[in-house]
Amino acid sequence: MVQTKTPAQKRIRKMGARQIYEALRDQILESVYGADGLLPSSRALAGELGVSRSTVTVAYEQLAAEGFIDVRPGARPRVAKAVAEARNRDTRSRPSSRKVRLSTYGQRLSQVAPRPSEPSRNFIANFRYGDLSPSDFPVLAWKRAVVAAMTRRPTKLTYDDPSGSRRLRTALRAYLWRTRTVRCEVDQIIAVNGSQQGLDLCARLLLDPGDRFVMENPGYLMARHVFSATGALAVSIPVDTDGLDTEQLVKTEARLAYVTPSHQFPLGAVMPIGRRHQLLAWARKFDAYVIEDDYDSEYRYDTKPVPPLHALEGSENVIYLGTVSKTLSPTLRIGYLVVPPELRSAFAAAKLIMDRHTPLAGQDALATMLETGVYDSHVRRARRRNGERRQALLDALHRRFGDRIQIDGAAAGLHVVVWFRDLPPTSEAALIEAALAKGVGIYPVSSLFDQRRQARRHRPDVVGLVMGYAALETRQIERGCELLVQAVEQLRSTRHATRQRRRQLDYQNLR
Amino acid sequence: MVQTKTPAQKRIRKMGARQIYEALRDQILESVYGADGLLPSSRALAGELGVSRSTVTVAYEQLAAEGFIDVRPGARPRVAKAVAEARNRDTRSRPSSRKVRLSTYGQRLSQVAPRPSEPSRNFIANFRYGDLSPSDFPVLAWKRAVVAAMTRRPTKLTYDDPSGSRRLRTALRAYLWRTRTVRCEVDQIIAVNGSQQGLDLCARLLLDPGDRFVMENPGYLMARHVFSATGALAVSIPVDTDGLDTEQLVKTEARLAYVTPSHQFPLGAVMPIGRRHQLLAWARKFDAYVIEDDYDSEYRYDTKPVPPLHALEGSENVIYLGTVSKTLSPTLRIGYLVVPPELRSAFAAAKLIMDRHTPLAGQDALATMLETGVYDSHVRRARRRNGERRQALLDALHRRFGDRIQIDGAAAGLHVVVWFRDLPPTSEAALIEAALAKGVGIYPVSSLFDQRRQARRHRPDVVGLVMGYAALETRQIERGCELLVQAVEQLRSTRHATRQRRRQLDYQNLR
Repeated sequence: MVQTKTPAQKRIRKMGARQIYEALRDQILESVYGADGLLPSSRALAGELGVSRSTVTVAYEQLAAEGFIDVRPGARPRVAKAVAEARNRDTRSRPSSRKVRLSTYGQRLSQVAPRPSEPSRNFIANFRYGDLSPSDFPVLAWKRAVVAAMTRRPTKLTYDDPSGSRRLRTALRAYLWRTRTVRCEVDQIIAVNGSQQGLDLCARLLLDPGDRFVMENPGYLMARHVFSATGALAVSIPVDTDGLDTEQLVKTEARLAYVTPSHQFPLGAVMPIGRRHQLLAWARKFDAYVIEDDYDSEYRYDTKPVPPLHALEGSENVIYLGTVSKTLSPTLRIGYLVVPPELRSAFAAAKLIMDRHTPLAGQDALATMLETGVYDSHVRRARRRNGERRQALLDALHRRFGDRIQIDGAAAGLHVVVWFRDLPPTSEAALIEAALAKGVGIYPVSSLFDQRRQARRHRPDVVGLVMGYAALETRQIERGCELLVQAVEQLRSTRHATRQRRRQLDYQNLR
Repeated sequence: MVQTKTPAQKRIRKMGARQIYEALRDQILESVYGADGLLPSSRALAGELGVSRSTVTVAYEQLAAEGFIDVRPGARPRVAKAVAEARNRDTRSRPSSRKVRLSTYGQRLSQVAPRPSEPSRNFIANFRYGDLSPSDFPVLAWKRAVVAAMTRRPTKLTYDDPSGSRRLRTALRAYLWRTRTVRCEVDQIIAVNGSQQGLDLCARLLLDPGDRFVMENPGYLMARHVFSATGALAVSIPVDTDGLDTEQLVKTEARLAYVTPSHQFPLGAVMPIGRRHQLLAWARKFDAYVIEDDYDSEYRYDTKPVPPLHALEGSENVIYLGTVSKTLSPTLRIGYLVVPPELRSAFAAAKLIMDRHTPLAGQDALATMLETGVYDSHVRRARRRNGERRQALLDALHRRFGDRIQIDGAAAGLHVVVWFRDLPPTSEAALIEAALAKGVGIYPVSSLFDQRRQARRHRPDVVGLVMGYAALETRQIERGCELLVQAVEQLRSTRHATRQRRRQLDYQNLR
């Protein structure tokens, strides 16, 4: 049911009474008006808001036309009876304590899923990893690409290919080949709603309850969550300066391994070629799949990239995963999988069942940017800018902390890991709290380690932070480090580091 | 790894050599060039294409810069050795017959999932349900909304709320209230990637293997597929002229029921209020959830809408599902759930794990259209246009078939069901074939019935077609009916209806 346009609806836009209308409507829905349901008279409200009485009248007419209020000449408007009753019924018959019957999957989810993140504060510098700066987003180029995509009119609006538009996948194939030496057929590429959906597809299609999957320790929590939610069991393999310790892996039987060989998340190691071959041999031996998450491969600052696993000989068990969340924006939700040929029909079927396909407009716009070379030049510019931020962070950290810290993983990506040599793990909560009090958001690497008892000996013996810099301007980075050093000094001086309540930050949601 | 811009890359855009470059690159990747890997000389190719030799040279330089070809002065370019070898290795080491190890879910999917649809033909009139006409899409308004959304710059680019943007959900709450009398809190709304993802969320969170779920028979196949994929068991309840037969339902224990009470898919019944209350009582008794798919409620032509289940007293077990796939475009992939308060945190967690959130740009654009009233006026226009199409179809059918047909479900939605009183089910395949030969796409309702043996007695005793009209112009509709009547006549005259091979059309993918 859609109402005919009332005179009030036509006028409301001209007169700008919409804000008043919306505020009143929200207040009505929030039961701001008490038991009598009486709203202020139009004269009173006009006086209060400093607008003309007719502006208020228009808002009231609109609310009346939509059934929110009853208006009678000479009387104050009143919340409509039906609305008031609906509110009361809601409050009465829907206690949130009603018992919930969830599937086994749903129950598991409530154990593994991160808490929803806190409302964001006003930080002077928030070093949370995963955020990007809007000033880096190529607004004009993206706008042009989106508009171009909308102008190209199809003969009908219909569901598209579940694997993604052929045009985007063709452009991605060329991109993967020229920038990552990844070779594949168009049909092996599945466009997904960001890498998270790519991981979920793998989880659903490849893992059964009780299966084992290999995770890097420390590693990416959202991958661990999505695999654990299937009922499969995580096997943690430690990470050292060469990434996943494949010597420990080869003794482990599992259905799949999730790895970040180009830039280990979070510690930043690049896996050398020897370990890569060992990893591939392991996968062939156990007929296991390796998910290669190449999440930030566009950002390398001072070393030659090692080719991805997918580009190596004998990589037929590798599922390659890429995203534009680090180059364009995490809010676009566009990623892609390259799956072995024997899996492509299963992935296409699962994608169809899950959500038909990824929204076409974003796919088309990205395809245009890839085809015209605009994406490549944008990536070059973003890399240059993030190179500057990285340098600012490294300079500030070295200047302020000297050799009291050690920095890992700075050769690539959009974050570094900073170890505070003289701060024991017990001081972590107090440090976070002290930094927060100064307006600096910091996130401990400890939360990315396997929290289970049996993995305890692998946990770090000093405080470490994952410091993302891609959303910050260089002066914020410098100011943030200045405040951070103050927080560390304060911690030392008050010496009550171990006692403080651990602050619940949204670091579980990192990346 | 991103390459530095080569001189060729800079020039290529100015000179328009990109098409040549792309064609050659695709040919190289498709192994068009034989064992010797030799490409034509630039002179030969320039002559063949009717362009200047320097244009071809630029394309060749670009291909060489990207490593696709080797160029030596005076010799014909040659496919780079690495590229040729990668091709060969691909073909050799990746036979598609490699055995696949899928999860139980993945294996079930291969049984329940529809085959990927056939490449589309050139139809004179394709009555496939679910397609929309691009001429109805509000290109300008949507473009304006998208551009407005892009111009509103956030302070950082970061993952958004898994349940959807607060702005969109606030706008949806008002929309649902004013157009559907659905009352809910903003937190009960979950923005999803089209109704399919809404169904998948319900399936994952509410069904375990072996659980029972109720489906209308006939009903929406993609809902049946997504629920069956969990390992739960479908219980079919027949549909009559009042929708789902709730008398039969009340004896059935199940975890959830999927229903389309506003406009039963496909038969078109509107469920009367008595059955609605019976359905809600059933849900309360068994503590089951009812998924109310309000997929095309915006289109009603001649009756007053009955309020949705969600708006009735005692509807606390109802999950309401809406979409813009019928009003804007199925390619946008935007839908929404209204879930009971006790389920909202589970749905938010599952959405987070599945793909973080629905792409923000589309959410923002839709919010703008809802806030400004542009969406409502678009819906009115689309309803008027589809009313015209519907009338053209009804007129043409009545004129050509008279009382040899019966039409159901024409009061609402974007399709009708046409029963051919004198065509037995055995003639269905021949009719589809004959229509197809004339360029008319028709889709039998029989495929939407439960195909299992125990449900056989509920199958229809004459041929029925689901005829969608939203993607067609009125003259196509008229011409299509003219051709359809010819197909029916031809069928009668040749009398070999029962023998013909059943044509595999993509009707399983309907809607």
